Amino acid sequence: MDKMNVSKHISGKFNDELESVRNKVLSMGGLVEKQLRDALIAIETSDQELAEHVLRSDHKINAMEVQIDEACVQIIAKRQPAASDLRLVIAILKTIADLERIGDEGERIAKVALESFNNDQQEFLVSLENLGQQVLSMLHRVLDAFARMDLDAAYEVHQQDAQADRQYEALTRQLMTYMMEDPRGIPKVMNVLWSARSLERIGDRCQNIAEYIIFFVKGKDVRHVSPESMEQTVRGRTS
Amino acid sequence: MDKMNVSKHISGKFNDELESVRNKVLSMGGLVEKQLRDALIAIETSDQELAEHVLRSDHKINAMEVQIDEACVQIIAKRQPAASDLRLVIAILKTIADLERIGDEGERIAKVALESFNNDQQEFLVSLENLGQQVLSMLHRVLDAFARMDLDAAYEVHQQDAQADRQYEALTRQLMTYMMEDPRGIPKVMNVLWSARSLERIGDRCQNIAEYIIFFVKGKDVRHVSPESMEQTVRGRTS
Repeated sequence: MDKMNVSKHISGKFNDELESVRNKVLSMGGLVEKQLRDALIAIETSDQELAEHVLRSDHKINAMEVQIDEACVQIIAKRQPAASDLRLVIAILKTIADLERIGDEGERIAKVALESFNNDQQEFLVSLENLGQQVLSMLHRVLDAFARMDLDAAYEVHQQDAQADRQYEALTRQLMTYMMEDPRGIPKVMNVLWSARSLERIGDRCQNIAEYIIFFVKGKDVRHVSPESMEQTVRGRTS
Repeated sequence: MDKMNVSKHISGKFNDELESVRNKVLSMGGLVEKQLRDALIAIETSDQELAEHVLRSDHKINAMEVQIDEACVQIIAKRQPAASDLRLVIAILKTIADLERIGDEGERIAKVALESFNNDQQEFLVSLENLGQQVLSMLHRVLDAFARMDLDAAYEVHQQDAQADRQYEALTRQLMTYMMEDPRGIPKVMNVLWSARSLERIGDRCQNIAEYIIFFVKGKDVRHVSPESMEQTVRGRTS
């Protein structure tokens, strides 16, 4: 039951169309993940060229979103999917909206690499990178869960966000202390703070995608429900 | 052509269902608008009780989103809408996702009213309120445009966002200067800065909703297109 066989859920003549859209989502996810990874490498290695490459590539993600969105609307109009097929199309529509915004956040993060930092400031850049790695791992795992429509993996990513939130809060405190100690550094530190916020938001969006996977597999909307109710949905038998 | 007659676009037996969902979106929009307005009043009048009321009411918005979302999926499954009917359902699905997140931002803004500020700090609270009023007007106007599926009004809101962005940038500079001058005030000022950011995001989300209206009326996805191409779509005849 753990790893749902997606093809089992796709029936009828539009199997190929649905598979093609699903593959496009995976390509889009791969690109978004690459953008975030490159943004973090650019910060770590002070690679301004790589940061600019990230900034120049966002339009590709936008174009993919529009293309997949259109394909989904076409499928609904032409194929009139029902039950789990319809849930898949809806889950895809929502997932690509989150992926597109993760791409936008990646752009904001890349901008930090365009700044230069002194030795003292390197310290909180390390904390930023740690948060970045945590969130990158969430993104990688949720895309993997999406590829296999793996309920358990999606639930694990959902749980992982609490840890990212704690890291984000610790970093925020660290940055505020730094600003109070050296007010001249504020504008530069603010950019780090915005990036940290962007990373925290990416974590939230990975959580959203995990919820769409659970919605597809279980047919139940688990947004805004209590942790207990969420666990019950995930652990319960498929209805 | 200015004010599209929505009922003209809704044909067949599921007219009532579609109208009912549209009305629910308007109720949800009304509640989201009230939350933002209350959050701003709470800041202006230092009304902590009102701020807490805003924080306690967010769950209603979440519940409405889930309910409308379900109704839309039901309509697609049962009624198999096509053409402009399908575009309406898709536009609704996307609009409620943005409305729900505007509600979340409203919560963050309300939290500022739980703080107390000294006389010096009142100054930037006024700037925050000005930005708040600007964004509240965008939200009001885009909901109004949604109610009438008014293409021109949607386009105007879309254009209005540039002004909100300028106000936001001026406020950010003001707040950073203040932090540099009085580092002890940083934690408190940071909260104002987060609220300002939330307001700026609400402006972006109003822009998104304007784009969904244009998508419904014109059948064309205008996200990520150039301003010229957007204007051409809006000014051109309905295809």
